[in-house]
Amino acid sequence: MKRVKLIVAYDGTNYCGWQVQPNGITIESVLNHHLSELLQEEIHVIGASRTDSGVHADGNVCVFDTAARMPAGRISYAMNTRLPADIRVQDSCEVPPDFHPRFQRTVKTYEYRICNRRFPDPIARLYSLFYYYDLDLEKMREAASYLVGEHDFTSFCTKKEDVTNCVRTIYSLELTKSGDILTLRIRGNGFLYNMVRIITGTLLRVGGGQIAPEEIPAILAAKDRSRAAETAPAHGLRLVQIEYPDFQ
Amino acid sequence: MKRVKLIVAYDGTNYCGWQVQPNGITIESVLNHHLSELLQEEIHVIGASRTDSGVHADGNVCVFDTAARMPAGRISYAMNTRLPADIRVQDSCEVPPDFHPRFQRTVKTYEYRICNRRFPDPIARLYSLFYYYDLDLEKMREAASYLVGEHDFTSFCTKKEDVTNCVRTIYSLELTKSGDILTLRIRGNGFLYNMVRIITGTLLRVGGGQIAPEEIPAILAAKDRSRAAETAPAHGLRLVQIEYPDFQ
Repeated sequence: MKRVKLIVAYDGTNYCGWQVQPNGITIESVLNHHLSELLQEEIHVIGASRTDSGVHADGNVCVFDTAARMPAGRISYAMNTRLPADIRVQDSCEVPPDFHPRFQRTVKTYEYRICNRRFPDPIARLYSLFYYYDLDLEKMREAASYLVGEHDFTSFCTKKEDVTNCVRTIYSLELTKSGDILTLRIRGNGFLYNMVRIITGTLLRVGGGQIAPEEIPAILAAKDRSRAAETAPAHGLRLVQIEYPDFQ
Repeated sequence: MKRVKLIVAYDGTNYCGWQVQPNGITIESVLNHHLSELLQEEIHVIGASRTDSGVHADGNVCVFDTAARMPAGRISYAMNTRLPADIRVQDSCEVPPDFHPRFQRTVKTYEYRICNRRFPDPIARLYSLFYYYDLDLEKMREAASYLVGEHDFTSFCTKKEDVTNCVRTIYSLELTKSGDILTLRIRGNGFLYNMVRIITGTLLRVGGGQIAPEEIPAILAAKDRSRAAETAPAHGLRLVQIEYPDFQ
């Protein structure tokens, strides 16, 4: 028996998110199906991040246990001949049996892309939010600076029953512009439900002048979801990378 | 009666190219249909570039004549509420009645994207060619330098009955790398059928070491299609821009 870790990239457009659902195809269910066929045993992966419907990933992580003799490093190649084109395993390797993708220290990186121009770009439409109005990048950066560090992000998450501690640390939150594409890149030790999308929605309001950058500390302090702006749509978001500082 | 010019961007994935076909939906047929509905008269656009099936565009150009009273500048907005999400008009304006998008001096810019990494990137899969093998960018640049300027590009085109003069001028041919994406950007006064894709296929062979950069002049001089490499797939190509130096 060995534990295998996969790094998985996907275009989330045509999936009902990561997690297995009674109705609708998910990334997790497609992986379970093809891993089970490949390894000739029933496989259930444990995912690191249960991305929402429409969210993309360059590097989500999952693990599973298998008795199959296939070397862990070969599984990526074998899976990629079976998977649909919108899911690709980027790496497969053996990990210690106690490696759990969620219950240990992680650093996660997300990116949110905004296509800021007069008319939508058909080629970018599935992977960025089209935004017509002018955005003040300097104000957005100033607002972002208030979010970096350890804070209670209650105002910036959609409440989930089982989450009581909303303190998280954002290591960096950078905004860069390349052509028409504004990319918000955020790195932290964990993210609450919808947190990146609510931060993005709020920074868009700052960029448009409806919220002043210096209001951010009060929004954080209020611990009230209604004080932040609306949740930005899923399709602009991608999970870039999950790092495990205690392994390797 | 006025002549209106449209700049059109599209994701070519789901279309049988630009030109109207007896079987299959094309960009041109979709534009004709929605323009005719919008302006309440039968419209037939004249396109600048008949892109192949699967090729994308940031800025293809077409014109049409209309007796409708709608101001030319409003047509882009009105069309974008009707068109499918993978086609968007970027601009509409009135042009002189003798403006023809093909029969006058143009400068065209194309880009070809190559995703050069170990496994495909699902998010980039529709807009770039996945290429596994290492590429020597410096050799590709050296080969590209032989193609810049005025040459007979017979070796670099798929023969078409009605084309007799294969002399074209490439103003620039630049290769840049950003992350895993290698972009070939080519600017010229006109391109023969499949010319950018055959140049790309040949530069890929140079990058892989099968063709030496200094063989390019002899391949050009041979005026023989079989001397260049295979045509690169359509989906990595996009028509970026068409300029008309004699107008504006």
